Amino acid sequence: MAQSPVSAILLISCPDGPGLVAAVTDFVFSHNGNILQLDQHVDQQENVFFMRIEWDMTGFSLDRDTVEVAFAPLAKFYEMDWQLHFSDTRTKMVLFVSKQSHVLYDVLSRWQSGEFQVDIPLIVSNHDTLATVAQQFDIPFRVFSINKENKAAVEQEQIALLDDIQPDLIVLARYMQIITDDFIQHYPSQIINIHHSFLPAFIGARPYHQAFARGVKIIGATSHYVTADLDAGPIIEQDVARVTHKDSVRSMVRKGQDLEKTVLSRAVYYHLQHRILVYNNKTVVFD
Amino acid sequence: MAQSPVSAILLISCPDGPGLVAAVTDFVFSHNGNILQLDQHVDQQENVFFMRIEWDMTGFSLDRDTVEVAFAPLAKFYEMDWQLHFSDTRTKMVLFVSKQSHVLYDVLSRWQSGEFQVDIPLIVSNHDTLATVAQQFDIPFRVFSINKENKAAVEQEQIALLDDIQPDLIVLARYMQIITDDFIQHYPSQIINIHHSFLPAFIGARPYHQAFARGVKIIGATSHYVTADLDAGPIIEQDVARVTHKDSVRSMVRKGQDLEKTVLSRAVYYHLQHRILVYNNKTVVFD
Amino acid sequence: MAQSPVSAILLISCPDGPGLVAAVTDFVFSHNGNILQLDQHVDQQENVFFMRIEWDMTGFSLDRDTVEVAFAPLAKFYEMDWQLHFSDTRTKMVLFVSKQSHVLYDVLSRWQSGEFQVDIPLIVSNHDTLATVAQQFDIPFRVFSINKENKAAVEQEQIALLDDIQPDLIVLARYMQIITDDFIQHYPSQIINIHHSFLPAFIGARPYHQAFARGVKIIGATSHYVTADLDAGPIIEQDVARVTHKDSVRSMVRKGQDLEKTVLSRAVYYHLQHRILVYNNKTVVFD
Amino acid sequence: MAQSPVSAILLISCPDGPGLVAAVTDFVFSHNGNILQLDQHVDQQENVFFMRIEWDMTGFSLDRDTVEVAFAPLAKFYEMDWQLHFSDTRTKMVLFVSKQSHVLYDVLSRWQSGEFQVDIPLIVSNHDTLATVAQQFDIPFRVFSINKENKAAVEQEQIALLDDIQPDLIVLARYMQIITDDFIQHYPSQIINIHHSFLPAFIGARPYHQAFARGVKIIGATSHYVTADLDAGPIIEQDVARVTHKDSVRSMVRKGQDLEKTVLSRAVYYHLQHRILVYNNKTVVFD
Repeated sequence: MAQSPVSAILLISCPDGPGLVAAVTDFVFSHNGNILQLDQHVDQQENVFFMRIEWDMTGFSLDRDTVEVAFAPLAKFYEMDWQLHFSDTRTKMVLFVSKQSHVLYDVLSRWQSGEFQVDIPLIVSNHDTLATVAQQFDIPFRVFSINKENKAAVEQEQIALLDDIQPDLIVLARYMQIITDDFIQHYPSQIINIHHSFLPAFIGARPYHQAFARGVKIIGATSHYVTADLDAGPIIEQDVARVTHKDSVRSMVRKGQDLEKTVLSRAVYYHLQHRILVYNNKTVVFD
Repeated sequence: MAQSPVSAILLISCPDGPGLVAAVTDFVFSHNGNILQLDQHVDQQENVFFMRIEWDMTGFSLDRDTVEVAFAPLAKFYEMDWQLHFSDTRTKMVLFVSKQSHVLYDVLSRWQSGEFQVDIPLIVSNHDTLATVAQQFDIPFRVFSINKENKAAVEQEQIALLDDIQPDLIVLARYMQIITDDFIQHYPSQIINIHHSFLPAFIGARPYHQAFARGVKIIGATSHYVTADLDAGPIIEQDVARVTHKDSVRSMVRKGQDLEKTVLSRAVYYHLQHRILVYNNKTVVFD
Repeated sequence: MAQSPVSAILLISCPDGPGLVAAVTDFVFSHNGNILQLDQHVDQQENVFFMRIEWDMTGFSLDRDTVEVAFAPLAKFYEMDWQLHFSDTRTKMVLFVSKQSHVLYDVLSRWQSGEFQVDIPLIVSNHDTLATVAQQFDIPFRVFSINKENKAAVEQEQIALLDDIQPDLIVLARYMQIITDDFIQHYPSQIINIHHSFLPAFIGARPYHQAFARGVKIIGATSHYVTADLDAGPIIEQDVARVTHKDSVRSMVRKGQDLEKTVLSRAVYYHLQHRILVYNNKTVVFD
Repeated sequence: MAQSPVSAILLISCPDGPGLVAAVTDFVFSHNGNILQLDQHVDQQENVFFMRIEWDMTGFSLDRDTVEVAFAPLAKFYEMDWQLHFSDTRTKMVLFVSKQSHVLYDVLSRWQSGEFQVDIPLIVSNHDTLATVAQQFDIPFRVFSINKENKAAVEQEQIALLDDIQPDLIVLARYMQIITDDFIQHYPSQIINIHHSFLPAFIGARPYHQAFARGVKIIGATSHYVTADLDAGPIIEQDVARVTHKDSVRSMVRKGQDLEKTVLSRAVYYHLQHRILVYNNKTVVFD
């Protein structure tokens, strides 16, 4: 994958109107760009236009530093929110964990195999349980003991630490702490959480216990961007598994862990590929 | 299927304790019964034992009228709740519908093909929209116009009508009315509803609109026994389908209708086969 | 749905090259068309470009009879295979059935509810078993008794009958006869079959028996366009269901029937919406 | 989990006949055993009876060394094939791998977290690529370079090595070599393989390439016991994922890897819990 030619990825959202696709594709075409993938979507109810366009930079007549300047007038004319990415930029991803290892191992194994082409400069935890895992993969590991009294202060420390690193993405890999609004606002649409239920069912603590008590026949997992409302941020991906009366809470936990791993990893993958647009507390995922 | 030999089906729940399976299987064996299927389950948390045992009546040394009497002492000793069924008893099933035809057609088509071996003496509706469907299948159709004022009175009429029929099962096949506690108590664990969401998410009205607004990536359907709490009865079966940002409420409705049909039909099938035990607002489904 | 404004749908495939999306969207935009949906795909391996573009005809500056003429030069320049459809054209769909009713009822119920906006001028069968179903829905029903001797002659009769009707789509709704190459070539990519396995597993007769014998843990259904090779045509849609050692062939048949209904109906729906492009014995389905 | 009381697990298969369940449950009951779980199945076609019964050894009147002797007469009378296991016996599991790390990491992570309560005395590979992974988890790693000429000799070396270890289970965790009949016969129903297709589709090499070429809309993975026929052994577990025309072989590989991990781990879990009975090249899995 390292030898793939570099591509540019443009993510756009703006008020819908005629000529948008033509204008953007003309821009790429007129500079000799070959479109690799184009996805667009119109939310008819909200009248919002969304687009992801990826083109090969080989032979493109603008070099990468001038693309933004060249595109800006068009973006302004159509009142676009937009982001430009290049496929060879390495994302910095910080992981937050607690005591359970399954999601952490899964993420690190994808990183080792090259499925996630990222740098992982830091793992943060509120317990030292997983220090050995971090060590296995030779990644710095920082423990912050958290209690009611020190919570606010600890978070300021964490924010300071992250400010040094400037991560592009923070993944809560079964981090069992609620993070505050202040923290979240430092990283809008950059914090991905995995919640162990098919949201909006079973918000909050101990969702497998809730699922067991309600007697559901399916359990699920949901990855979402973190917002100020607990477990209520924009959903990126969900999946489910069947359970029966034979399942105890313990076996639901076991089955659910597989969902947590795959559902989180798909969300991270989409994010790394710049395939997600957020609006209205929902996501457009161009898979 | 009509020529299958008759089998007896015993459904048991009681406090767990040693010797239960041995006692019941001895009872069957000592009267020359050949067990066709045996399922048991213990809820370790509640310490409740559940069992379904089905045996061939061919060569059984008790005739069907004396099985109950013969089994009663054992049942009393173990404090069992129990039901005895014979496979050749035809269930009387009444359908409640409203304006949408998809579930009704699906149920009737399964009845026509022999998948549901039942009698359908009546279809009840609050609108006359589906009268033509009932006519196609030559089934009596009764319309009750319902409004806030007459609701209680209409329900008394419905109960009187049903008392004449004595249905074994009432299926709410997208009947869009809330039925009262009084009605429900006439038919405990005998009324099956299909709700168009993966409960407990999106209880109440317009679940597809709720799902669209929340931006979920899966939609679902849930069949459950009706209890006094709206959409909170024991869940029998659930299933889900993927949706994306491309789905409008309308396309969610379209995709969801297929779920509604299959999820309801599985619940009805389990019920007809006497495979469901209800306790603690949950179900044991011996599939 | 009847009141929706009319839209035009253009399906395109051609050798990939720069400027294709820009050229087509410019064509629509320059005639005041508002794009409702645009999907494109490039098969990188084969270097083929595929596109589906749908725009609102309200306010479009070309009337529907002149769109083709206006688009033709551009199509020629890019060596496009292309089709133009309008959303208000009613498809003529002929059904072929045999003895089993479940798929037929399902298709007819979707037609009755308006999910399939088609005309059904004829149902063809090799048995009279389902004549009553056709009668319920008031659709002409023609029986052709088929045996080894008369097979070729019967097919010529069928072709003659169809030539009168000029169907846009023929659906083999569990029609248990192999149709000949000659017949197929009259209706290229216009005959959809439902096969009761997850192809390419269990081609040919009695796939549920084959599945049972192999001891698989999932069964499936596949809808595909019919080609000269048995069960080897371009796959449109597939789905699966879990089975266990408890399942007999009979219960696999019962579970599989639900798959057959949904998988066929999705394929028909995609076809009716002009969302399928066929190439290389595969399909591009813009859902 | 380590503190769970010890339970005994009896796996039985024999010709079906009356009184089997009663006889076995009487045996347990008469020695003061409390049944924790009982599953039985009758293959009506083959007339074979299968049973798994698990009971608490606390208070059981036979100690674990005498259970076999006490049960033997009953087993002989009914011509049973049977196995007796105790829940606290640690399984010895050897892993065979090649160059891909995803399944290996997944298995080792489940071992680390205690989901798999096994000893892993050895990892075998035909390449040294994954030596570092073995090292991370501190497990002996042996490389055997294999080519056409030395294949038979190498296998004899492997068999000798395994004979020293006496593994209870060998897991081919994406080991890309065909193992010979001779090797297999040393470990009947003790070698589990993961094949990256929904068997029996796409047997043999490069199943994702085969799937891409055929244009399927679902891909799958299958775990099975290894027999002399390539990819034709008794299937333990299967699962699938959706793909579309957008998927390349590379993205199918990526999506399929998640299936491989979960499908293999479920099979291993069932095996470790003594929940699988093999007969007729099929499995009964009492989940």
